[in-house]
Amino acid sequence: MAYTLILLRHGQSAWNKSNQFTGWVDVPLTEQGIEEAKYGGQLMAKKNVLPDIVFTSMLRRSIETAFYALDQTDRLWIPVKRSWRLNERHYGDLQGKNKSEIRQEYGDKQFMIWRRSYATPPPDIKSDNKYNQANDPRYKGDPVPKAEALKNVVARVEPYFKSDIEPELKAGKTVLIAAHGNSIRAIVKMLDGLSDDVISHVNIPTGIPLVYKLDENFKPIVPRGEYLDPEKAAAGAKAVANQGK
Amino acid sequence: MAYTLILLRHGQSAWNKSNQFTGWVDVPLTEQGIEEAKYGGQLMAKKNVLPDIVFTSMLRRSIETAFYALDQTDRLWIPVKRSWRLNERHYGDLQGKNKSEIRQEYGDKQFMIWRRSYATPPPDIKSDNKYNQANDPRYKGDPVPKAEALKNVVARVEPYFKSDIEPELKAGKTVLIAAHGNSIRAIVKMLDGLSDDVISHVNIPTGIPLVYKLDENFKPIVPRGEYLDPEKAAAGAKAVANQGK
Repeated sequence: MAYTLILLRHGQSAWNKSNQFTGWVDVPLTEQGIEEAKYGGQLMAKKNVLPDIVFTSMLRRSIETAFYALDQTDRLWIPVKRSWRLNERHYGDLQGKNKSEIRQEYGDKQFMIWRRSYATPPPDIKSDNKYNQANDPRYKGDPVPKAEALKNVVARVEPYFKSDIEPELKAGKTVLIAAHGNSIRAIVKMLDGLSDDVISHVNIPTGIPLVYKLDENFKPIVPRGEYLDPEKAAAGAKAVANQGK
Repeated sequence: MAYTLILLRHGQSAWNKSNQFTGWVDVPLTEQGIEEAKYGGQLMAKKNVLPDIVFTSMLRRSIETAFYALDQTDRLWIPVKRSWRLNERHYGDLQGKNKSEIRQEYGDKQFMIWRRSYATPPPDIKSDNKYNQANDPRYKGDPVPKAEALKNVVARVEPYFKSDIEPELKAGKTVLIAAHGNSIRAIVKMLDGLSDDVISHVNIPTGIPLVYKLDENFKPIVPRGEYLDPEKAAAGAKAVANQGK
């Protein structure tokens, strides 16, 4: 018996639209982002890939995505678990700043390092940056990072996947994770055993469920999984790769 | 230290609007119902009564209400637990039927017994009633009733309150229960120690958070709790009492 895992990256948020670095800042989906979530749900319904439990991050764009997608599958009632470990990568002091302006100020090379380096995080968030989450009540008792590279995201996602998600898969549940570009890339890296270099070039499209069938050791039966709308996913991945250009 | 419990009855659903008996049928909120939920959330935000955890039933009108209310308090991220034990009373074979037609067909007296008798349930739902939940996947492994009086709702809500809700209150969490007229009446009966007769005349308005401060024995410090908008709550309770007239 294969386990079924569905990864769903949230669609357009207010700051995707305004071209700002978001990270742990809690911005809502736009109308377009809501429509993307609904489309993701419609695909799950149409292909009869129906989640039994949903995991979200602590950020509203992930929670909203789960809500609007599950609504379309008539599965609003399934159990929900939330964790900061599924949050987007913390963008450090870039949080709140305009991507084009940062690119102009620091140049293409530095910009791409901050966007895509596996191990080099952006500068730590300053304590007076108004988009600092140090005192956010939702993280009370949890470690709030000052900046993260993908490597740091992998380090926080992997133990959570093992402790909280694998047992649900093992129990035969179809698991939906509604999350973010980088927390999903962390999971893809882990499942597919991708190198640090390869994962740096993987782009996850928004709003298209990515379905992994996993064997009893949680290894993908089809490497890299299968998108429920492969054509749209390919176009979406390309659009992600071109962001900030 | 007092414990804080917030009870929120969902607002208008599609079948409230079309005047049909609903019970366990999973109908959505109307636009008006969504606005009611948002207003309830705005009241919680304004009065700074902020939930740390939310309980819902398995029905979308309760889940939607929690979502739109929590959105207004910027607390979409709190933990969520769902249970069929918080569902609306099962209306038996009346589910799906028009309230005015039933009133005309069976007369005022029988109608009021079905609506408000503490111990007499409506007729059992027939297996060919298309609004029967016997095979609904969300209740797999749970006992699906064929019809319930308020007495039956009390019998299923009370143990859940003790096993799942009291521990959260005891841990100092402000608990929100987004539920239904009759599951909330069951909780009010239990907390305030109301007689079967008194509870039969209690009407819970929709969309207005009812806040109970409870002592260490879970006894209300202010009997019957306090609505966050008492004036609107009184008008709402009156409207509920007049339903089906």
